Amino acid sequence: MKTIIPARLNETKDKLVILDQTLLPVEEKFLELDRREDIWEAIKKLRVRGAPAIGIAAAFGMYVCSNRIAASDVAEFKKEVLTLKEYFATSRPTAVNLFWALDRMFDRFENEEVLGKSVDEIKSAFLDESEEILREDQEMGYAIGKYGLELLKPGMGLLTHCNAGGLACSGIGTALAPMYAGQEKGYDFKIYADETRPLLQGSRLTTYELYKAGLDVTVICDNMASIVMRQGKIDAVLVGADRITANGDVINKIGTSGVAILAKEYGVPFYVLGPYSTIDMKTAKGDDVEIELRDGDEIGNGFGRRTALAEVKAYNPAFDITDHKYVTAIITEKGIVRAPYKENLTKLFRD
Amino acid sequence: MKTIIPARLNETKDKLVILDQTLLPVEEKFLELDRREDIWEAIKKLRVRGAPAIGIAAAFGMYVCSNRIAASDVAEFKKEVLTLKEYFATSRPTAVNLFWALDRMFDRFENEEVLGKSVDEIKSAFLDESEEILREDQEMGYAIGKYGLELLKPGMGLLTHCNAGGLACSGIGTALAPMYAGQEKGYDFKIYADETRPLLQGSRLTTYELYKAGLDVTVICDNMASIVMRQGKIDAVLVGADRITANGDVINKIGTSGVAILAKEYGVPFYVLGPYSTIDMKTAKGDDVEIELRDGDEIGNGFGRRTALAEVKAYNPAFDITDHKYVTAIITEKGIVRAPYKENLTKLFRD
Repeated sequence: MKTIIPARLNETKDKLVILDQTLLPVEEKFLELDRREDIWEAIKKLRVRGAPAIGIAAAFGMYVCSNRIAASDVAEFKKEVLTLKEYFATSRPTAVNLFWALDRMFDRFENEEVLGKSVDEIKSAFLDESEEILREDQEMGYAIGKYGLELLKPGMGLLTHCNAGGLACSGIGTALAPMYAGQEKGYDFKIYADETRPLLQGSRLTTYELYKAGLDVTVICDNMASIVMRQGKIDAVLVGADRITANGDVINKIGTSGVAILAKEYGVPFYVLGPYSTIDMKTAKGDDVEIELRDGDEIGNGFGRRTALAEVKAYNPAFDITDHKYVTAIITEKGIVRAPYKENLTKLFRD
Repeated sequence: MKTIIPARLNETKDKLVILDQTLLPVEEKFLELDRREDIWEAIKKLRVRGAPAIGIAAAFGMYVCSNRIAASDVAEFKKEVLTLKEYFATSRPTAVNLFWALDRMFDRFENEEVLGKSVDEIKSAFLDESEEILREDQEMGYAIGKYGLELLKPGMGLLTHCNAGGLACSGIGTALAPMYAGQEKGYDFKIYADETRPLLQGSRLTTYELYKAGLDVTVICDNMASIVMRQGKIDAVLVGADRITANGDVINKIGTSGVAILAKEYGVPFYVLGPYSTIDMKTAKGDDVEIELRDGDEIGNGFGRRTALAEVKAYNPAFDITDHKYVTAIITEKGIVRAPYKENLTKLFRD
């Protein structure tokens, strides 16, 4: 499977390698970073984006930078590692996965410390831990791909929105995972990707990674989802999720809910794919989640030139809420969940 | 009512004045044209666009250019006018309104000729006829506005797609006509305009003309129609139509059908507004209409820079088909038609 890993170590394992996603699709530039300021900037400026990929970049960043710390005394080393952790945490203060990865690395430090390990041994443990985070993310993708593929047949037309692919995670992503898994089996999917205004993750990223991997992908504008469904070109919709609430409502990139409603109207199954960790059993329903409003200039001035007068108001929510009644199934690395979601998600967590 | 007339005569009635819509919204430039090549180019290059506006520009162009013809002999004058007519007809060979306006002007010529009028009298008749075409178009808009307004209440939130406004017609347009009519009565609508990818007629043109006219307008991306309806911001959807078939199916700008389906799902009325001449009783249903496919680079390279790799396929239909089952009412200058459309449109034509 030919996929792109957005954040990894170089061959000599002393630098973090990031594909600079801000330059896609025009330029494919890999950055090799080992200075903490450069890694911080890469996360801050969205050169690496997508919750899992940010976590992986932060973990590798912790390793690479810790490895360059000269201290031989564990207490002194720990102090510097803690400073590093706190510094990285300021790069994207709203990215939950960033903190999760930094905490996990630091927990590993403290476990090793308790066991009386040396600085060199702790550095080695850091390498293990960061590679383990990448590996787990990849395995999550493979598992989602395997379960998702059970719902699909060879030759199907598939529609996706935004980018929930290898560029957001590692390897094969979530919504795109069954596409890659199908490719392995010669399933020959015809994939349509919504361009996903305003930030165009669909046209810039999804078509890029699928095309590079040799899949059959066609970009459409978001407002063309209806006509391609009407024309019978779409047999299933596959999207990712930023959060899934306890009742099965889905918070995902703006436009997801519209695609879900069209899919229901045209009788096309609508599948939501994401890591088990995306399910938030503490939040009852989608309407309980606050939707981030972003700068209107992403709409009116998003392409380096004005498409609407600066004086005209723009409303720019980053996410929307897809009611669970439009969701055919939720696919995680633990399997496939169908309605009634409240009961079945509870059951998933209990098991 | 403060509106913009996209094609008109100057004060001395010897030049065609066109607002160059290719420069909107960044630059508001009026072109004063009296050379046939310049008028041809303005139509060809979409400096004036929208079926009615093209017809009006062609009619004024016929007048302005005929007026400069030196011949004093009617037969010789007629020969030159015919050449002019044929030349203008090549500017946009698929624009039905262009031919309609040119034919109407030429019919007037022949009527005057039969009556034994002089070249100067025929030139004067041309002026009358072209001004009459503009006046009829404006009156059509006022009538649509009046009927449309019967369906609306003060303070309503309205959503529109593409540009079926004064910039496409003259004065107040079709889908936007009730908004302007409501403004006159202090209705205080909150208007949302889909940006309308790929060519952005919504953000470039609709928000421009509504803002300039002092209406409350907010631009959204096409994929945000669902969330604004879910949030209760929209009480009615108003769109134009390129063609309405005998069963009430609507051919309109790509994305219209998606908005219609969302409106149905959220219980929001969906109104289609257009001139009576838009109704095509000879075509039974929407699926009988061939949909124009346009260059994929409008999607992947539409803003002067690549948003998708050039190698990635793009599917770019210019229009879509809105099934009549999603249409709450069709509003023309002759009144409001509701389902069953086949019967009621037939009745409209019979009366």
